[in-house]
This record gives sequence, C-alpha cells and structure tokens, in this order.
Amino acid sequence: MEKVTLQDVQTARETIKDIVKKTDLLESTKLSEKTGANVFYKCENLQKTGSFKLRGACNKIANLTEQEKANGVIASSAGNHAQGVAFGATMTGIKSTICMPATAPLAKVSATRGYGADVILEGTIYDDAFAKACEVQKETGATFLHPYDDRFVIAGQGTIGLEIFEQLDGKVDTVLAPIGGGGLISGLATALKGLNPDIKIVGVQTDNIPSMRESLKNGKVTPAFNDVTIADGIAVKTPGDLTFSIVKELVEEVVTVTEEEIADAILFMMESQKIVSEGSGAVCTAALMTGKYVPKKDENVVCIISGGNIDVNVLYRIIGVALARAGRRFSFSVLMNDQAGSFNQITSILSENGGNILTVNQGKISAGEAINKQTADFTIETTGFDHIEQIKKSIEEKGFKLI
Amino acid sequence: MEKVTLQDVQTARETIKDIVKKTDLLESTKLSEKTGANVFYKCENLQKTGSFKLRGACNKIANLTEQEKANGVIASSAGNHAQGVAFGATMTGIKSTICMPATAPLAKVSATRGYGADVILEGTIYDDAFAKACEVQKETGATFLHPYDDRFVIAGQGTIGLEIFEQLDGKVDTVLAPIGGGGLISGLATALKGLNPDIKIVGVQTDNIPSMRESLKNGKVTPAFNDVTIADGIAVKTPGDLTFSIVKELVEEVVTVTEEEIADAILFMMESQKIVSEGSGAVCTAALMTGKYVPKKDENVVCIISGGNIDVNVLYRIIGVALARAGRRFSFSVLMNDQAGSFNQITSILSENGGNILTVNQGKISAGEAINKQTADFTIETTGFDHIEQIKKSIEEKGFKLI
Repeated sequence: MEKVTLQDVQTARETIKDIVKKTDLLESTKLSEKTGANVFYKCENLQKTGSFKLRGACNKIANLTEQEKANGVIASSAGNHAQGVAFGATMTGIKSTICMPATAPLAKVSATRGYGADVILEGTIYDDAFAKACEVQKETGATFLHPYDDRFVIAGQGTIGLEIFEQLDGKVDTVLAPIGGGGLISGLATALKGLNPDIKIVGVQTDNIPSMRESLKNGKVTPAFNDVTIADGIAVKTPGDLTFSIVKELVEEVVTVTEEEIADAILFMMESQKIVSEGSGAVCTAALMTGKYVPKKDENVVCIISGGNIDVNVLYRIIGVALARAGRRFSFSVLMNDQAGSFNQITSILSENGGNILTVNQGKISAGEAINKQTADFTIETTGFDHIEQIKKSIEEKGFKLI
Repeated sequence: MEKVTLQDVQTARETIKDIVKKTDLLESTKLSEKTGANVFYKCENLQKTGSFKLRGACNKIANLTEQEKANGVIASSAGNHAQGVAFGATMTGIKSTICMPATAPLAKVSATRGYGADVILEGTIYDDAFAKACEVQKETGATFLHPYDDRFVIAGQGTIGLEIFEQLDGKVDTVLAPIGGGGLISGLATALKGLNPDIKIVGVQTDNIPSMRESLKNGKVTPAFNDVTIADGIAVKTPGDLTFSIVKELVEEVVTVTEEEIADAILFMMESQKIVSEGSGAVCTAALMTGKYVPKKDENVVCIISGGNIDVNVLYRIIGVALARAGRRFSFSVLMNDQAGSFNQITSILSENGGNILTVNQGKISAGEAINKQTADFTIETTGFDHIEQIKKSIEEKGFKLI
C-alpha cells in the first residue's frame, strides 16, 4: 500500500487553496483553565460546507484525469461528505451525483442540491444509497469518491495539520481528532509527524462505535458497533485499510466518550466559545472535559472541531439534556393536599426562589397514593445544583413531599 | 464637544493590539444568495469575553494617567461591558470593581469574577447597581468607565472598522451595526468614513427600544422605550450626547426589527453559519433577512455580530420559538371520539407521516364540546410547512377535527 507523505499534503494545500478556507484557531480559555494546558479549537465547523470534508474532496477531484473529470464524480452519503463533494465538484466545474437514502434530513438534501449536485434519493438506509451509487457509477463511468480510504482524500484532510502548525508557530504538542473512517486523523498525523515527529496525535471515538480502537487492539481492521450515536459524522463501523495502517503507525492513543459527555461538550462550546458543533465535532472537547485524555501542564493542545452540521431540532434536544445535566433545569413531582390553595403554595415557593416554570402538569386523577392527595409535575429553569437544592429544601420545609 | 477622528481609532488599534483579537470575517453564503449582495459577518461574538466591548474598555484604560491606574476602575453593568472592563483591567494589571444588580444571571457574575474583577451585587435593577458604583467611586477615587459616551471607548470600538477595511481590501460598500448607546456605530462610522466617505453606515435597533431612531427624528437626544427586548445588549433608553452627535453626522439610516425577527436571525446564524449570537448581535442579520434593509446587488455588506453572550436557557427558548415559526415544530389539538383506539389512530397517522412527538397531553375532562368527544394536545417535530400541511390533511382525512 502506497503511503501518504508530508509532500503529498503540501501539494494538496497548493491544489485546494483557492476553494478551501484557512479556518480560525481559537483558544478555549475555559478549557485551558480546566486542564492547565493551552487548549485551542481548530474550527472546521466554520469551513465552507460546514465541515473539513471539502478539503479531501477538492484534492481528489483536482487529481482526476481530464477524461475522469469529463465523466463527473459520484458519492453516496447522507452527511458532510455529500456536501463537500458537491461543492468541490461545482467549484471545479465538474458534474457531481450524490446518492442519499430517501430518509435523509431535508436540510442536508437541500444543502447538497444547493451546492450544485444531482441528488438521487434511494431506499431507507445508507446501504441502499451506496448500492444505487454503484449502479449509476457503472452506467455513467463517473468516478466514485470514497469518503476516507483514499490517498488524495487523506492528503486533503492533512492540510488542516499544516495550518495548525503555522498558526501556533510550530509550537504544537498534542492534537486530538475525531475518528470515523480515519481519513481526517490519517492526514493530520502524516502532516504533523512529518513536520515534527514529537507531536502526539490522539484519536477520539464514541463508546458506542469504537471501531478504530478495537481494530488497534486486535492489530487488524475490526468492525465494532454497540449502539447508534449523536456523533453521526464518525458513526463508521469499519475503518479503512489504508487509514488503519496509517493510524497504527502514527497515532499514539485512541480514547472514547459517551453520548452524554458529547452533549455536555456541545453545550459547553456554545456557551464558552459561541460556536455550534455537531456531535462528532465535540468529541475532543468531551475527552478533555472528562479527563478521558489528560494533557501535560502548559503544553499546546489542539482539538479539531470537525464540523457544525447538526440538525437544529436535534441540537434543541441535546441542549435540553445538557441543561438538565448541568443543573440548569429541574424536573420534579410534588405530592400535595387535594384542596384549593395547595397548587398556589407550590408556585409561590418557586416564585420566591426564582425558579422559572417551563412546564407544569396536574393531570393525575386518583393516582392511588391517597384519597386526599394530588400530584403535580413541574419542569423549571434553575441556575445550578445549589439552586435546585435550595428549591427542594424550601418545598419540603413547607411540608410537601417531593416524589 | 471634541470629535473622535480616524487618527484616534488608528492610535487605539496600536494601543490595544496585544490584548484584543482580530476577529474573523466570514461570508454568509446563504444571506448573499438571499439578498444578491455579498454579505459578511464580522464575528465579535468570537472576540475575547464574547463581545466587542473589550476594545473600548482596553483603550480607555490604557489612556488613564498612572495615578488613575493606581486607583483602579469601576463600572456598573450586568452585561458585556462588565466583562470587557474586568478582562481589560486585569490584562493591564489594574484593579477593577463592577457593580451588578443582585438579580444578574449567575453565569455573568461568575464570568466577570473569573476575569479578575471585584463584583459588588446591589439591588434588583441596573439603577441600584449604578448608584452603588457612584458611591464606591467617591470612596475609592476609581475612574468610572462609561459604556459608550466616551471618546476613548468610541475610538476602541472603531478598531473593528479598520479590520473590516483590511479584510475586504478596502472594498467595503455598506456596514450594518446594532445601536444601543451608540458607542460601537460611532467608532465604526468614524473609522470607515475616515477611510472612505462613500461607505454607507446603517444602524439597527429593535422596535421595542428605538431610541437612536427617535432621537434622529427629533433632532435631539430623546429617550424611547416600548417594551423589553431579547436584544439586551442594545436595550438603552437614552443615547449618549457624544454618540448622538456622531451618529447624526455619519450614519445614513437606522432601521428597526421585531423580537420574532431577532429570534429567526439567531436560529439562522446557528444553522447556516455555526455561530452563536446574542440578541443584539443578530439584529443586522434580521434587518437583511426581512428586507428592512435592502442592499444593492453585488455590493459588499458587512453585519457586525456584536456579541455571543446569551444565556443558554434563553437561547433554548428562542430556538423553540424560531423552530415553530420556521414550520419545524407544530402544536395542535385534535377532537376525537371518547373511546378506546381513538388516541392510537392519531399517533398512527403521526408515525406514518414521520412526525416525531415531543409532547402529548390528553388532560381535558368533560371540556364541554360534546359528551362523547375528547381532545388531545400534541407538539411534534416537522421538516417544514409542507410537512405540517401533509400531517393536517392526513388527520382530517381520517375524520378528526383539528381545533
């Protein structure tokens, strides 16, 4: 298997420079304080199309022969790869076809069409879209663009590493990157280790789909899938062969994080850094916040925020969960006497304690606890766990029982 | 009244360059498509402390005498000014005291303390905190830092204009900026008109607090307040004297937007640009989205995203409202026969049509419409207005009545 080299990445950078944006590197003051290291975010969520995928797609397309370009490109994806390929192809003046499952979110379908691709909707799962893409590929002779297991794609993603190295004047100690198929981290590691072999590269996956970690443990490509994940951008059951061989050689460690930790990290980034990250973009932050990866004091650590394409309805739910986990929201049921005035006593207590009511329900009839008792369910906004304790105490002091 | 000049702004830039970050200028492809202009966001939400206020505070502090510096600075604010002053003072090695109402959000209090200020909590409204600050100022001899009506503060905010001019290689046609007290737009206008008098400066306020617009109409500083606003950063009832005189001379137009339009703009920026804006940071986007300001075709328009310090509980509510307004969420009540199976028929229809249930309540007993009828209330996730219509039609076709 032909290796990818630093030279390949440097060439890629020159190739894609007119289409791809050099993204900002923002210091996360909060995460620096928390860890004792200097933590930076490489914001590929602010990249055109909302993710790093554009880099690899552009580099691959630019390296096609004239004949291949004339035949166009094809890909199957319901996510960031689709948008990267569509935009990259359109900017290069070639035709692209993207096969997506018909169940793909409308926003992603319109975005991909908006970037100029012909979108074919087929079946209900990714495999249907992939099969359709193979079929269309045979008919049209278009080049199939693999999302990660491709030398040019890997070299394209690696350009992020060159930018980071420049942005920190070479003072890079550790870089954390999400791993799905492994294209991003393979390119990064190739670029950064090429520039300085002492830079440590750490991969982050989800507990639910730790396929690269399992593959490294077994010394060979090994599929792994425990459950679905909100980090859909790295929901890849089987790493690539080429990416596995690079990761095995260049990546020091792979850690994993839970779904709840990812939700917390998304909220944290919104609050402290004012940026929107998708689930896969937040795993590195989650690894640092939880101490799943502990950096050395005062070293320069970079987290790759790989993308920001998260459905707002999903984001809304994630924020809801994360707020509850942070003590910023409190749901409780209270048992009270079934008589006029009881309910008002509770709401008076909440009012006095600054607990803003989000939802309230008094819906249970003769629930059976006691003939003369009634329950009501509340969800309120709170400022933190101390506030919740204070409200619980105030309610109980008035003789009500929280259940 | 001594004017602020381009030279003052250029000097300010040199003065504050080691503390303040040159923020990113991002193109908003979606807004460019929508308006036919080239729309850019100047991302002061990504500035240190989460808003532009740091610029003015740093410049003011740097221009204090050694004696004044020794006495420290004091300010009253529950918002971005507090954080800007605290951080600016700490970075310059001087003491800061910030008076805030005791009702200020905990997050803002901790942030301000975190930046190194002594925080004094006093009273329940801003005026109490202001009174306390005056009292402490007399005792300590600290310098009171006005949030906007100050030459050095204005010159500091103006440095944003110099950056924009460079970032667009001088090709700036129109700049939209939020107006509260007027410090930001006064500085911007001074800088940009100084560089090129043809650059058009447009201010944006809320319908609820259109104080600068009213002042311009009346030809003199005029307080205005109709209602509270989610754009708390520009909730200023009375513009400054100095800022009014500058705005009167240099700002071409002031437009206003509604609360709902601001909420839509916040959601739009999260979704299309992956950035979190506070209410006041989103008013320029709102003005362009709604056509309250219509730019010329192909001109370069810059929106100042003044800050990103929004309480996540508030953000959560705003997203909820904005999702409903965008047809991404649908709340309805349905009248059905009061018998086993009715409820299941409704949920089957929702299931078949891909409407994910967020909340459901069947709580009304003998509501009086009819003895043998019952109502249930649903809120579901939808993909848009077409999806809502399809679901409504499917429910009605099965003989149910939506109420």
